[in-house]
Amino acid sequence: MKRRLLLVSNSTLHGGGYLQHCQQQVQDFLGERVKRVLFVPYALHDRAAYAKVARDKLRTLGYEVDSVDEADDPVEAVTQAEAIFIGGGNTFRLLKALYDNGLVSVIRKKVLEDGVPYVGSSAGTNVATISIRTTNDMPIVYPPTFAAIGLVPFNINPHYLDADPNSRHMGETREQRIAQFHEEPHTPCVLALREGSMLLVEGGRASLLGTTRARLFTRGKQTTEHEPGSDLSFLLTDSP
Amino acid sequence: MKRRLLLVSNSTLHGGGYLQHCQQQVQDFLGERVKRVLFVPYALHDRAAYAKVARDKLRTLGYEVDSVDEADDPVEAVTQAEAIFIGGGNTFRLLKALYDNGLVSVIRKKVLEDGVPYVGSSAGTNVATISIRTTNDMPIVYPPTFAAIGLVPFNINPHYLDADPNSRHMGETREQRIAQFHEEPHTPCVLALREGSMLLVEGGRASLLGTTRARLFTRGKQTTEHEPGSDLSFLLTDSP
Ligand SMILES: [Ca+2]
Ligand SMILES: [Ca+2]
Repeated sequence: MKRRLLLVSNSTLHGGGYLQHCQQQVQDFLGERVKRVLFVPYALHDRAAYAKVARDKLRTLGYEVDSVDEADDPVEAVTQAEAIFIGGGNTFRLLKALYDNGLVSVIRKKVLEDGVPYVGSSAGTNVATISIRTTNDMPIVYPPTFAAIGLVPFNINPHYLDADPNSRHMGETREQRIAQFHEEPHTPCVLALREGSMLLVEGGRASLLGTTRARLFTRGKQTTEHEPGSDLSFLLTDSP
Repeated sequence: MKRRLLLVSNSTLHGGGYLQHCQQQVQDFLGERVKRVLFVPYALHDRAAYAKVARDKLRTLGYEVDSVDEADDPVEAVTQAEAIFIGGGNTFRLLKALYDNGLVSVIRKKVLEDGVPYVGSSAGTNVATISIRTTNDMPIVYPPTFAAIGLVPFNINPHYLDADPNSRHMGETREQRIAQFHEEPHTPCVLALREGSMLLVEGGRASLLGTTRARLFTRGKQTTEHEPGSDLSFLLTDSP
């Protein structure tokens, strides 16, 4: 499998600019062979403004950006893409637009069969996984399914947040939410990426990059913590 | 319209016990004529344990509890109910179970046509509204639609949380999430109930109870703040 993925928890880290905390990893990942990146701005309402933000930033890293939203034929744009970058925003809106435009299966094929590199951030990371069932977003629109592109056989929870022991708020903690997910049958692992962390996948190898630890939730098992640099290739085997 | 609703933001307030902060309002609302309450525990995984918690608490207020999950025929149980109480937990799980058991339309009919009093808490408040599109919960299961029981013609966001100016977390604030909802066309008002607040509806009258203010988000308009005791009857007219 030629799969190459860079799945980032968050596009902006507190105090930094857009993609600033992961720009080195994006550059290392895309390399010098890639000249143009196809950007998917569907997760935000103002797609033109979002494409401009991505274009301005990626230009400083040496890449030209085409927005799939500006293409006459989005499927053809994906088919021709050298690299794909799906930005964050609202995961429900993003997934619905991917299905509405017929892009889910063509992105899967391009990435898994043709080895086109895929960068996802936040919601763009959620949709790269097996489903959006562990997104943090509000369900503002109804997608035809929660099944996503399925580039990896597990779930990711981006922007993972540890419980605040001083909080007086009674809504579920993130950990409790993921535990509720695992109360459902046949639910896969959830890799919880704290802000500042990202997952690099190359074929059958996966490793954690960035500056923060990741937490792994497995149904019926103790959660585990993983340091930056950890080998997480075991997540890529299809059975949980 | 005979509708009588008590829609509570949260079942437990920090430092208090289950339903403690709203027990007076529950008692005032159900009154002395009601002897038995039909409890719907679908939002939590362990339905028997959840029914026990509700039963133990409501007994101290003078009500016996039947769990719809213990009924041979859930539709018949709703049809015979003197009062309905839907508890909180995961809103997606709750709504899916309501549809799976064929209860959405029968609850709507009992409440709107027969005047059976309805108490909802958290997820049980979300499903009482027009849709679950403003829940805070994780989409752990896929319901057949986000349309809900529709006892009121607007949305509620329970557990509303003001943005923390000191937070370094970059996930969307609650206000940003609701703004994303209102970027979608034809979206109704969202009444954001902070923890400690609840909405009382009697026929065509609605008022805010509890100890905290509520915030009202209307598409294309400024948000407004409403004190406990406010008359919110204008929300019940069908046009936004
Ligand atoms: Ca988001
Ligand atoms: Ca909840």
